[in-house]
Amino acid sequence: MTALYNRVALIGLGLIASSMAHAMKAEGLADEIVGFAKSAESRAAALELGFVDRVTETAAEAVHGADLVMLAVPVGAMEAIAAEIGPHLAPGCTVSDVGSVKQAVIAAVQPHMPEGVWFIPGHPIAGTEHSGPRSGFASLFRGRWWLLTPIAGTDPEATHRLRRRCEAMGAKVAEMVAGPPDLVLAVTSHTPHLIAYTMVGVADDLRRVTDSEVIQYSAAGFRDFTRIAASDPTMWRDVFLTNREATLDILGRFTEELFALQRAIRLGDGAHLHAYFTRTRAIRRGIIEAGQDTSAPDFGRGQTKDEVQET
Amino acid sequence: MTALYNRVALIGLGLIASSMAHAMKAEGLADEIVGFAKSAESRAAALELGFVDRVTETAAEAVHGADLVMLAVPVGAMEAIAAEIGPHLAPGCTVSDVGSVKQAVIAAVQPHMPEGVWFIPGHPIAGTEHSGPRSGFASLFRGRWWLLTPIAGTDPEATHRLRRRCEAMGAKVAEMVAGPPDLVLAVTSHTPHLIAYTMVGVADDLRRVTDSEVIQYSAAGFRDFTRIAASDPTMWRDVFLTNREATLDILGRFTEELFALQRAIRLGDGAHLHAYFTRTRAIRRGIIEAGQDTSAPDFGRGQTKDEVQET
Repeated sequence: MTALYNRVALIGLGLIASSMAHAMKAEGLADEIVGFAKSAESRAAALELGFVDRVTETAAEAVHGADLVMLAVPVGAMEAIAAEIGPHLAPGCTVSDVGSVKQAVIAAVQPHMPEGVWFIPGHPIAGTEHSGPRSGFASLFRGRWWLLTPIAGTDPEATHRLRRRCEAMGAKVAEMVAGPPDLVLAVTSHTPHLIAYTMVGVADDLRRVTDSEVIQYSAAGFRDFTRIAASDPTMWRDVFLTNREATLDILGRFTEELFALQRAIRLGDGAHLHAYFTRTRAIRRGIIEAGQDTSAPDFGRGQTKDEVQET
Repeated sequence: MTALYNRVALIGLGLIASSMAHAMKAEGLADEIVGFAKSAESRAAALELGFVDRVTETAAEAVHGADLVMLAVPVGAMEAIAAEIGPHLAPGCTVSDVGSVKQAVIAAVQPHMPEGVWFIPGHPIAGTEHSGPRSGFASLFRGRWWLLTPIAGTDPEATHRLRRRCEAMGAKVAEMVAGPPDLVLAVTSHTPHLIAYTMVGVADDLRRVTDSEVIQYSAAGFRDFTRIAASDPTMWRDVFLTNREATLDILGRFTEELFALQRAIRLGDGAHLHAYFTRTRAIRRGIIEAGQDTSAPDFGRGQTKDEVQET
């Protein structure tokens, strides 16, 4: 399709930025993609893989003349970046981000945006447990939601163009004008990650007792947890620090419910356990119906002859 | 290969039993497979799918003349089944099970085994979130561990034959003569399942507040939890009731660690969070190296064009 932007600046060159670059190149959405990352190694990898046309040594240089700037750095790094690039943004430029937390990002970025620049916060609900410029792939966003939370007064044309870009990369776009979805993300993403990290930590402690058995006989449930718990530590530290209130709220509900189940186990209350486990089955069906996952069995992954030989 | 058993009786016709039957048929490991399940619907499905040669109306009839009896029922049903079949077992017959808990199963089954019958407890570390006779497939056990925990005094030839059967279905067999692996399974499988059930329950409560957003924007971490939490309620109820002590031990460690992370979030202690998240990355690498999972990104599943169209 015709390019939607003349020059896109990617600030950060990790999984999300590199996937956006691959997708934008594949669909011809930008005439030029300029990249910046703090790490020289990441910049070199981006050039080598060819998903950016050039890299710059500073974020300020990268945004020069760009009509779209995508902030794809950990949430904790957003404020310093916004302060650095603010004075260098071209009039009419759109700035967006991909942070997993929205209220904190808006508070960090918006004050640094000059008049006539449109900051449109966003969050693609997509990712893998891998990180860095070599982990990106063009199809990451296909069929996934991309939330946009435009701020009152934003030029509708700027929002519309950004939306078209997300859709051209295969994403389904939801505009949430009512407010940032931090509580929803706390329950669907942030708290599950914290719990997975914790469970893997417990197993790691125990491993010193039972040697390698925990890894050796790693079963379905735990395998999935370790996958989640292999995600980028810096990104997740910043998520929890900046979405503190919603995460603590959900964690409080979680421990209440867990204690109720723990008590049922201690008291041998099988009816309570069975009723609870039956109820949770239904929500899985809802997710499959909403198209966010397939019903294909997943614990059996790596089970075909060829795949087993690969592992 | 030459059949290892003349007649195999499957008691229970769910995911594990039907997968065993498909695999034994594919590899020619049994001359005849007889099936029993409490539910007439399951028996009819087994016949219709053809993974058993015939079904019986009682477990006692099913084991008649069998040289291998596989108990594949929820752990809580083991004792009644063992009591029923005990008097009908042929001399020299091997009885094994696939229960996720071993101490409780040994206590339930062993007292009912007559002289000259070998009870060899076992546990395949394999499964999916689906259940029932229609969910089985022949490759479920390929590349997965099958734990055998033979009791002192068991005929080594009987253990050897059972081992060969598991290996012929593609499993890697580990004999754990030292004792049942209930603590290891509590950390790698049982507690992760309980936690996933809990998190999905919390989300379900919240859904009443935020309508369908939790499902609609279901992100990576939570999607994996719902998959785990869709597992068979009866099986899991019995696991927690019968592996109570190990589960409560691991749950205690888990909540301790979770509270430490929760405190770090509350106090804004980013260094603690980052160090913890970095440590858990390493155990994931260990699992990939142990061949229990692949390093292919999983959160991106269902991302290819064709797959998205299917969902």
